[in-house]
Amino acid sequence: MKILVINPNSDPEMTRAIAEAAEAFAGEAFEVECRPTAGAPRFIDTYQDRAESAPGMLALLRENHDLFDAFVVACHCDPNLDLMKEASRKPVVGIGEASMKIATMLGHRFSVVSTAAHSIPNKEALIDAYHLRGLLASVRAPREEWAEENPEERYFRTAKAAIEEDGAEVIVLGCAGLAGLDKRLGGRLGVPVLDPVVCALIVAWGLARADLSTSKVRRYDPGS
Amino acid sequence: MKILVINPNSDPEMTRAIAEAAEAFAGEAFEVECRPTAGAPRFIDTYQDRAESAPGMLALLRENHDLFDAFVVACHCDPNLDLMKEASRKPVVGIGEASMKIATMLGHRFSVVSTAAHSIPNKEALIDAYHLRGLLASVRAPREEWAEENPEERYFRTAKAAIEEDGAEVIVLGCAGLAGLDKRLGGRLGVPVLDPVVCALIVAWGLARADLSTSKVRRYDPGS
Amino acid sequence: MKILVINPNSDPEMTRAIAEAAEAFAGEAFEVECRPTAGAPRFIDTYQDRAESAPGMLALLRENHDLFDAFVVACHCDPNLDLMKEASRKPVVGIGEASMKIATMLGHRFSVVSTAAHSIPNKEALIDAYHLRGLLASVRAPREEWAEENPEERYFRTAKAAIEEDGAEVIVLGCAGLAGLDKRLGGRLGVPVLDPVVCALIVAWGLARADLSTSKVRRYDPGS
Amino acid sequence: MKILVINPNSDPEMTRAIAEAAEAFAGEAFEVECRPTAGAPRFIDTYQDRAESAPGMLALLRENHDLFDAFVVACHCDPNLDLMKEASRKPVVGIGEASMKIATMLGHRFSVVSTAAHSIPNKEALIDAYHLRGLLASVRAPREEWAEENPEERYFRTAKAAIEEDGAEVIVLGCAGLAGLDKRLGGRLGVPVLDPVVCALIVAWGLARADLSTSKVRRYDPGS
Amino acid sequence: MKILVINPNSDPEMTRAIAEAAEAFAGEAFEVECRPTAGAPRFIDTYQDRAESAPGMLALLRENHDLFDAFVVACHCDPNLDLMKEASRKPVVGIGEASMKIATMLGHRFSVVSTAAHSIPNKEALIDAYHLRGLLASVRAPREEWAEENPEERYFRTAKAAIEEDGAEVIVLGCAGLAGLDKRLGGRLGVPVLDPVVCALIVAWGLARADLSTSKVRRYDPGS
Amino acid sequence: MKILVINPNSDPEMTRAIAEAAEAFAGEAFEVECRPTAGAPRFIDTYQDRAESAPGMLALLRENHDLFDAFVVACHCDPNLDLMKEASRKPVVGIGEASMKIATMLGHRFSVVSTAAHSIPNKEALIDAYHLRGLLASVRAPREEWAEENPEERYFRTAKAAIEEDGAEVIVLGCAGLAGLDKRLGGRLGVPVLDPVVCALIVAWGLARADLSTSKVRRYDPGS
Repeated sequence: MKILVINPNSDPEMTRAIAEAAEAFAGEAFEVECRPTAGAPRFIDTYQDRAESAPGMLALLRENHDLFDAFVVACHCDPNLDLMKEASRKPVVGIGEASMKIATMLGHRFSVVSTAAHSIPNKEALIDAYHLRGLLASVRAPREEWAEENPEERYFRTAKAAIEEDGAEVIVLGCAGLAGLDKRLGGRLGVPVLDPVVCALIVAWGLARADLSTSKVRRYDPGS
Repeated sequence: MKILVINPNSDPEMTRAIAEAAEAFAGEAFEVECRPTAGAPRFIDTYQDRAESAPGMLALLRENHDLFDAFVVACHCDPNLDLMKEASRKPVVGIGEASMKIATMLGHRFSVVSTAAHSIPNKEALIDAYHLRGLLASVRAPREEWAEENPEERYFRTAKAAIEEDGAEVIVLGCAGLAGLDKRLGGRLGVPVLDPVVCALIVAWGLARADLSTSKVRRYDPGS
Repeated sequence: MKILVINPNSDPEMTRAIAEAAEAFAGEAFEVECRPTAGAPRFIDTYQDRAESAPGMLALLRENHDLFDAFVVACHCDPNLDLMKEASRKPVVGIGEASMKIATMLGHRFSVVSTAAHSIPNKEALIDAYHLRGLLASVRAPREEWAEENPEERYFRTAKAAIEEDGAEVIVLGCAGLAGLDKRLGGRLGVPVLDPVVCALIVAWGLARADLSTSKVRRYDPGS
Repeated sequence: MKILVINPNSDPEMTRAIAEAAEAFAGEAFEVECRPTAGAPRFIDTYQDRAESAPGMLALLRENHDLFDAFVVACHCDPNLDLMKEASRKPVVGIGEASMKIATMLGHRFSVVSTAAHSIPNKEALIDAYHLRGLLASVRAPREEWAEENPEERYFRTAKAAIEEDGAEVIVLGCAGLAGLDKRLGGRLGVPVLDPVVCALIVAWGLARADLSTSKVRRYDPGS
Repeated sequence: MKILVINPNSDPEMTRAIAEAAEAFAGEAFEVECRPTAGAPRFIDTYQDRAESAPGMLALLRENHDLFDAFVVACHCDPNLDLMKEASRKPVVGIGEASMKIATMLGHRFSVVSTAAHSIPNKEALIDAYHLRGLLASVRAPREEWAEENPEERYFRTAKAAIEEDGAEVIVLGCAGLAGLDKRLGGRLGVPVLDPVVCALIVAWGLARADLSTSKVRRYDPGS
Repeated sequence: MKILVINPNSDPEMTRAIAEAAEAFAGEAFEVECRPTAGAPRFIDTYQDRAESAPGMLALLRENHDLFDAFVVACHCDPNLDLMKEASRKPVVGIGEASMKIATMLGHRFSVVSTAAHSIPNKEALIDAYHLRGLLASVRAPREEWAEENPEERYFRTAKAAIEEDGAEVIVLGCAGLAGLDKRLGGRLGVPVLDPVVCALIVAWGLARADLSTSKVRRYDPGS
């Protein structure tokens, strides 16, 4: 089995980090490739960023459709995910959707640790769209006064506050670029910390193996 | 005051129909122009259609930003509305959002009459995103066996079923292309029937007049 | 077009303040009159206050029904609004309903700034009745220790806390008596601040112009 | 213990029927009196009916406040219940609220059997206000074509449809005037059928006995 | 009338405390007996505790089924309540369900005061299962730094924080073992404080008197 | 990797059917064993059935805890799942939870096809507990008049009605005993049909591989 991880942005460094985490998880079980999106911005933050990454993402999907068994969209705001699901008869899994839904199976309430306060409302809107608000403890970003700390420390403090103040029992890393932090944070925090790319690979692997894919009867029917 | 109505598709005929309804409402109160979107599909149905209309919609908005006081996105699935709100410091109003929220002020529950069964789940997803499910009676499309009937008759029967079987007290026309049907259907049905373009113009006119616009603090902050 | 703004209380001073804000918004676009309610308390706070204002409000509506095109109920708890909608075949708009629904079109979450802590649960009950809880950041009243500050300062601090601590992106002034504060607070806060009377006038003007009004099929059918 | 059952309408016949059902339940356990509301309409149907019954209900409550230990508002739409709770430091129980909340303890979902289709949206709005929608199977009224049948038969058919088509496991009689039908319908239907006056008496008796009453800290604080 | 209060744990001391509170409420109105559950743990905290108490609870119910008119399950997490409702054709009332539903009739929002932070998520899950989240202010447990204080003081501070910080208007004691604290806390706090055993007795007494019990059509049908 | 599938009932035939489906999915990717529960009923239907299967399920889990990497509870009502999650530091996955959450990633709304009408309310209660109601089209069981048809035909008709009448885009087989029907029904219906055991294996495999498991901070902390 071969899974293509589509990084919706064009940053080669983040693509490499995602690839490493994906390959580490895949091991011998399946093949995985990770590609950046040509023509996309270096980082997906705004609605404009999402719109600009759409053509490149669609092109990546179509050019590689026959070569892979499943596709992962590797940005935690799941940009253009509906578009990608509509465009394919093979499994397409968003790392936001997969990670937050798996989180709900591991504890009472989950929190998402985001990179910046700006992305909190967008993440909340996504959570509402997935009908997950009732299972959410909080969406948090590191406080500005922690800007001097190293990333691990910033996200550790953010997650710790979510656990202690918001009642979170599970932490979801809210950015594909945080790949690799899950193990270290999980060890220090004593709760499951989910790498969203890993979560999406679990679902993509399983769907492809079970020969399941997006329903094509109405919402994701691409028409003629 | 001048309002630009952006038709997200490229169909000149539908643009003309929307323009007529918009001008009829505007009368002497304000100026209104209606433009199709260059490079967009002839009809917005799929997620791909929406993605393809994004660049043209954004271009229309930007080129005309100084010339108009407010903008209306005239497709009932509110394609790229978040993108347009983010891109402007002037009011941007979606006809889906405005019509369904105004509908909730006119009766107990509203139904949306859509053009095709395919669009029902997309409309439901939009309704969920706007947190309107609790006020919804139903989303309905004409039955296939009514395909021979003229449009007015098809939508009349659809709306009548929504009123009698689903408890709808207000009808929202779920497509900009149904402009003009509102008065005729309203007269026959005995309930308010909302032309979504008119609803959006009400809100756009009011926001522009009150000097109000999309908040720029987080969700719709376009960044630097 | 002529719109009657019904102030559910009997305070001439608050009536004057509302009238000024209403006229400033109406300008040349439409005529507006504002009247206090005979026999009503000086301020609407308790459920008893609401009950006591009902007969006078209904009398005002009926005596002026032929002379105006639409009616606004100008108290932010929307007292007797269902009664007024039922009693009229012309548009009746509550400033609470209109302002909070328009707020949802301008940002991710809105907060209501109320005059007193006592009114918070009543406002929350209203927000639930309108199915707006999912879009609410908070309802807040000025802290008691700010009692010495001037009103603008008290509400500025209250709104600022809502933005910074609760994630509000839009502020709704939760009392008709705060008319005039919207521009000053909006300028200082950098987010849209809604004068609820203005919001209701937008909707009332639009509905009257579009010849739309409350559905009379069931909930607001006054019977025979 | 003495409980006053306030019939919000002025119909002596319905008052008598309610009194009989209330006395049958009270037996030797407590005393109960039932009074119609002076100045109220003969039947509470519209919002205007509710407003017109408010002064008389409040007068009844105040004049008898020292003589009774608890009060029941005996109309299933719970007219002016917030007003009555605010006005008293003794228990005030609405038959709509008590019956629907007790229904949720007896089965998976409940249905309300109402007297007329007109009252369905009002009942649904009440159910939303009580946050009971998630536990509701349906609100139903007898079909018009059953108008010739006797009341028991009409409500039997209505309840049966709720059980078979909507999944109701418990039936709530949605009008104080249906007193007495509960036993006969329950026997025929094989599910619990709740007389709402009885349900309110249970709660009122219990609250008075336990020396509990409406909280006076904010929402129901009558002020000074 | 005779009501059996089943204490799901095996602690004789807690059983005695519950019995005292139950008898004080019952007075001359009905007979009440309280029994511990043989084979159950001394305290119900974990899911395993609940499972271990099931056989003994069922045995108690069955052995005493003919001797009592109604049954109360006296642990605030309502352990095995569905099982007990299914097993009986007489009323079975959980103290968690009864107390929280009665709380919603006495004020705007209620808070549950629990014995330990560990039980908060379980209580929240129960509140979700009862569809009460919309009426909840908070679930709180005493802070660890108050461990030295006497119980009344610990729960007083916890409840006070719920009232002042979370907007609670009614307090529910979240453990049968807190019997007796209701009056003292209520007096100090100035809001209704509910002893859950008393609440369940109110409902059980009323259901038995009205000859009502759990619906047996589907969810609680024990099969053959 | 080795996964233990715990069939909560004691039926060897159903255990064999589940084992076959599980092994077919596992293939070479991981080892899977399937065991019935000693002391459990032959079929899990009532709440009593669930309680009776708890000791045996717990024993199976504990005796095999060191030998397996993850555990699946293979009854679609997820009996004793909280208990099992609490009792283990390794992944425990319910087939109800996994299948319905994966279903939400494959289409707009899903329907569950259950074996009997009796189980519909229990399934609905589970769906509410998982906060999935907003994504549910319906829970359906075969109509009684289809009792003569073979199982495939009965479930085909049931699923078809869910797709056509309720708007389902994905079908979840609501019983472990329906293993094997997924491919045949999927082929005939043209939508994804989920075998819940396969879905649970996907999640269990992924969690074990990623070294993730149930959070132990509060809800599932087994205490000391």
